[in-house]
Amino acid sequence: MTRRIKIAVIGTGRMGSVHCRNLVRSIPEADLVAVCDIRLEVAQAVADELGVRRVVRDYKEFLADPEIEAILIASSTDTHAFMMKDVAASGKHIFCEKPLALELDKIDEALTEVEKAGVKLQVGFNRRFDKSLRQVKAIVDSGEIGRPCILRITNRDPDFPAMEFLRVSGGIFLDLAIHDFDMVRYQLGDVVEVYAAGGVLLKPELNEFGDIDTDVVILKFANGAVGTIDNSRKAVYGYDQRLEVFCSNGTAFVENEKENVAVKGSREGFLSSKVPYFFMQRYAPCYVEEVRQFVECVREDKPTPTTGTDGRAAVVLGYAAWRSLRENRPVKVSEIG
Amino acid sequence: MTRRIKIAVIGTGRMGSVHCRNLVRSIPEADLVAVCDIRLEVAQAVADELGVRRVVRDYKEFLADPEIEAILIASSTDTHAFMMKDVAASGKHIFCEKPLALELDKIDEALTEVEKAGVKLQVGFNRRFDKSLRQVKAIVDSGEIGRPCILRITNRDPDFPAMEFLRVSGGIFLDLAIHDFDMVRYQLGDVVEVYAAGGVLLKPELNEFGDIDTDVVILKFANGAVGTIDNSRKAVYGYDQRLEVFCSNGTAFVENEKENVAVKGSREGFLSSKVPYFFMQRYAPCYVEEVRQFVECVREDKPTPTTGTDGRAAVVLGYAAWRSLRENRPVKVSEIG
Amino acid sequence: MTRRIKIAVIGTGRMGSVHCRNLVRSIPEADLVAVCDIRLEVAQAVADELGVRRVVRDYKEFLADPEIEAILIASSTDTHAFMMKDVAASGKHIFCEKPLALELDKIDEALTEVEKAGVKLQVGFNRRFDKSLRQVKAIVDSGEIGRPCILRITNRDPDFPAMEFLRVSGGIFLDLAIHDFDMVRYQLGDVVEVYAAGGVLLKPELNEFGDIDTDVVILKFANGAVGTIDNSRKAVYGYDQRLEVFCSNGTAFVENEKENVAVKGSREGFLSSKVPYFFMQRYAPCYVEEVRQFVECVREDKPTPTTGTDGRAAVVLGYAAWRSLRENRPVKVSEIG
Amino acid sequence: MTRRIKIAVIGTGRMGSVHCRNLVRSIPEADLVAVCDIRLEVAQAVADELGVRRVVRDYKEFLADPEIEAILIASSTDTHAFMMKDVAASGKHIFCEKPLALELDKIDEALTEVEKAGVKLQVGFNRRFDKSLRQVKAIVDSGEIGRPCILRITNRDPDFPAMEFLRVSGGIFLDLAIHDFDMVRYQLGDVVEVYAAGGVLLKPELNEFGDIDTDVVILKFANGAVGTIDNSRKAVYGYDQRLEVFCSNGTAFVENEKENVAVKGSREGFLSSKVPYFFMQRYAPCYVEEVRQFVECVREDKPTPTTGTDGRAAVVLGYAAWRSLRENRPVKVSEIG
Repeated sequence: MTRRIKIAVIGTGRMGSVHCRNLVRSIPEADLVAVCDIRLEVAQAVADELGVRRVVRDYKEFLADPEIEAILIASSTDTHAFMMKDVAASGKHIFCEKPLALELDKIDEALTEVEKAGVKLQVGFNRRFDKSLRQVKAIVDSGEIGRPCILRITNRDPDFPAMEFLRVSGGIFLDLAIHDFDMVRYQLGDVVEVYAAGGVLLKPELNEFGDIDTDVVILKFANGAVGTIDNSRKAVYGYDQRLEVFCSNGTAFVENEKENVAVKGSREGFLSSKVPYFFMQRYAPCYVEEVRQFVECVREDKPTPTTGTDGRAAVVLGYAAWRSLRENRPVKVSEIG
Repeated sequence: MTRRIKIAVIGTGRMGSVHCRNLVRSIPEADLVAVCDIRLEVAQAVADELGVRRVVRDYKEFLADPEIEAILIASSTDTHAFMMKDVAASGKHIFCEKPLALELDKIDEALTEVEKAGVKLQVGFNRRFDKSLRQVKAIVDSGEIGRPCILRITNRDPDFPAMEFLRVSGGIFLDLAIHDFDMVRYQLGDVVEVYAAGGVLLKPELNEFGDIDTDVVILKFANGAVGTIDNSRKAVYGYDQRLEVFCSNGTAFVENEKENVAVKGSREGFLSSKVPYFFMQRYAPCYVEEVRQFVECVREDKPTPTTGTDGRAAVVLGYAAWRSLRENRPVKVSEIG
Repeated sequence: MTRRIKIAVIGTGRMGSVHCRNLVRSIPEADLVAVCDIRLEVAQAVADELGVRRVVRDYKEFLADPEIEAILIASSTDTHAFMMKDVAASGKHIFCEKPLALELDKIDEALTEVEKAGVKLQVGFNRRFDKSLRQVKAIVDSGEIGRPCILRITNRDPDFPAMEFLRVSGGIFLDLAIHDFDMVRYQLGDVVEVYAAGGVLLKPELNEFGDIDTDVVILKFANGAVGTIDNSRKAVYGYDQRLEVFCSNGTAFVENEKENVAVKGSREGFLSSKVPYFFMQRYAPCYVEEVRQFVECVREDKPTPTTGTDGRAAVVLGYAAWRSLRENRPVKVSEIG
Repeated sequence: MTRRIKIAVIGTGRMGSVHCRNLVRSIPEADLVAVCDIRLEVAQAVADELGVRRVVRDYKEFLADPEIEAILIASSTDTHAFMMKDVAASGKHIFCEKPLALELDKIDEALTEVEKAGVKLQVGFNRRFDKSLRQVKAIVDSGEIGRPCILRITNRDPDFPAMEFLRVSGGIFLDLAIHDFDMVRYQLGDVVEVYAAGGVLLKPELNEFGDIDTDVVILKFANGAVGTIDNSRKAVYGYDQRLEVFCSNGTAFVENEKENVAVKGSREGFLSSKVPYFFMQRYAPCYVEEVRQFVECVREDKPTPTTGTDGRAAVVLGYAAWRSLRENRPVKVSEIG
């Protein structure tokens, strides 16, 4: 086998521990040499499970280590920007979970540093690596069904995250719909205008900090197509993940997967299973594939498939949606910056 | 419009009244001039509903009437054979409901008379006119999915018919599976051997007269393919109608239709509707189409799409299945005659 | 049988001839006594086919005829309003195709006359009578899946109508989306605000008279729910008719019907049939049921299921959508009137 | 964590290497301490990939090693029986791939030794651990859909295995249908009689050694139910895996999974993806779960979920099918032994 990329992971919580397991078990081209978490015992548990030898509390210990070629940042969102800057300055390549940050100026500072350092940056938009969503893009890009006219996304979580997370998440457009704002760009390219509506229909506590639990969005694309997104924090039948690109000579869409393929027929009708509960189940192969591709880009010195520009653009669309909702008017993406 | 065929219907019960309505409302090339039923009031009610002027109790009144060109026989099965003989002898064309008779010698006598008279005969195998089942045959016949290897039919009624009917119906293989025995010939051609198994799993009263309520059948076709049929008298979720022709380069199958296309998603999963309750709903367009084609064959002097040979062959397969079940051995079709 | 309602039909074109056939063949409680069309030969052909004795060119002949109890108006949209006024003034009950008119003041005049005369008025919103769409409403109204949060409609025609029709149709929001604007009210009640986007992506000739061929709409409901609609003039795979009501404890949706239930499996995957080509196929039973219920309301002196208020409200939403599109801002329904 | 079971794997080919990976990556309760293959370099490659320290060519080296508690046998079928005897005699627990052997006397000798030694034996019937197939059994066993009447299995491989394998595999009933013969027992219990038909429709070379490529089977169960199986060596659309248990008050079935959930709609209709290519994809989670349960049974001294009796019974049904096919008659299971 060719050279393995030595990589360290910062943040070994829910998402970070998944990346660690994938690196060790499913990406032989990578070598997970160290893990970091401010909760040292959390990092230690992951290291023990996976046989990782080095465990640190402070990510800065990685910066001067010449052995480490790349760092995967999966710590909390508020830490992404300054870590990216530090890691870039140290000359190491970066895989950073989404969103890059909740503040555009911090994103810009980090991206500037990344560019200056000439390191690679990949943002963790996992859905771009889903085989079904990729298949839709392949069908549309082939031209066989003509010109894209209408894009539709339904993205609904199965249940609310913890209130502590919600208070700092940036709200539904920057935390939940951020995936859709990236996906629409992946499928149809640049968005020029956003209109959003929605409200608190499920959880009145959200009013305390101005978040909502239900929204619909209209998008206008640079290519003339239009789109809708709808989001909810709570779909009791599972993690609802649908997308359609309707074109002038056909349509391409992604249906929901199912938890299992058993069906019961009775006097009531036919009962089939719920959809997979959440992203860890639905997009499990994507988490492997995105990091595998990142490692490959580092090894072969290729551009990463999701860039800092992508990471920034999705946040811009999130802010456009928030402004649209608050001012109840369509907001041009150029107004946000 | 060109000439309309003057037609009379014998038997205005469940099936006959459907044919009457179709003739009047949906087949402008036909002119329903008279109806007959031994229960005169039943015939009268249908005539009143549809504006048919002539109503008789005895079908023999039709035989000498030169105005009537064709007769549709939808009376009880035990009357089919002698009526066919009489109608053929009178020189009129015949559409006869299935089965032609429960006794092969009576069928043979009737078919001989039909041939001698040179009149047209069509047997009421409605399913041959179903657009989905025809589509399967078209796909297979096109050769695009290769050579037929395995045929599968699931045919389950939603509930038991009346016990009075069951006592004289000829049993599950001559009453329910008869449609399958015709369909397999329609799809894959001649059958050479039959093996059947089954029993009374649902309604012990059937033991009184030797019928069963559940069966499975294996068929060997002249072309080397093999097939299975399964039947039940009671599928609580509706009239289960599925068929598959698996071939060397693909497969073609018919799924169940649905009563409606609404779906409910909840914590339990996704609940979709039952299948249409019974043949009147599921195969409604076929009842129009088969008689429309019959009328066309009479008008244009063409051969009928389902012949007396087809009618006889399905009964032969029914008897082969009964003998196989009773003797617990595969029975060659040539043993029956 | 009880009393049959004597009814006359004005306009025997595409839609009117369907109503005539349904009245004669499928609604025994009605007695179609006369038909009218300014193209007399068109009316005569329908009358000949169905055995209707009276055929006129001028609908005013019906007004003084005491035999006629109800009149079905299926002539071109620009005639609806004045005919309604005349028919109402003559004391006869009215079934009028949608839209009631393209001008709100004409609708208001007609509705005033209807109210003054005390006659019944039903508007031809056929989709309210679809068993699947009714099933969704029944599920939601039962409360078993909680509070409605998001409504989604996809409504796409299979192809463009004739350019002559498009020039006078009122455009996509008053001609195509009008069904959706009624359906959303049927499912979730009053709409308070509309935002629309869209454009000409398929047929540049539409620019000549300011119509578009592709649109998306966001709706805000009085009950706090939000909704999206998407429309296209041309879905090559058939008449795309989907709706979902997502609720706090589940979801209820309508999938597309299929032309047939045959499927071909091959190296390419599984190919199933297109959806039914157009409204005549997809909603055929609704056209019977809506008129059957109208006749029943006349016979039993009950309120009609779709009222003049409904007919007006859908047109108001259509105008709100047009204004929103042109001014690129959300438009309150109360702005239209 | 509690005690880990030290386990060795014999045979590191296609199936054995999957078990090795699962043991190392997904079953923390197990400790893969050694691997064995007569092709030492094959075993070494797996060991290198997974960090297993001990690699041997002769499985007998494991027998005297007190550290090894359990052995997983995934070598070629002809070695299973004597290995089982040796391993049992050494007092170690056994997980053995199916079939246990192609000769009943060898199976009996091995099972006698297993019983004498008092060690645990689990047979690798992976499908019993599939969540969808388990769900069907759970629905049926709950009694909510009544008494089982008809079982149907469709089991078709995507393509032929190598001819070398086919020459020694025991033929379609002992190699491919063996999974079905176990599954029917899992779902409905004992089978009392078998009738089989089939032939060479795809690959004439099979005639050289008396195998077939297409078959259908009828089963009679001890509980009165009946069943059908159909098998093919080549389904070009993927690995076709369907099962239904039709009951007196409903039905429960397993549909095919899909490779992905993207769909293309066009003038031709709707094209969805093939089914997963083969067992490694379709049943991947089962291979983990069956071994995880085996390890748990060893740790907690519980009976294994699939026993030597199960392994023997499936082979008996395979022989009954072969005899039925050759003698063209139903064969009682008791005739085989």
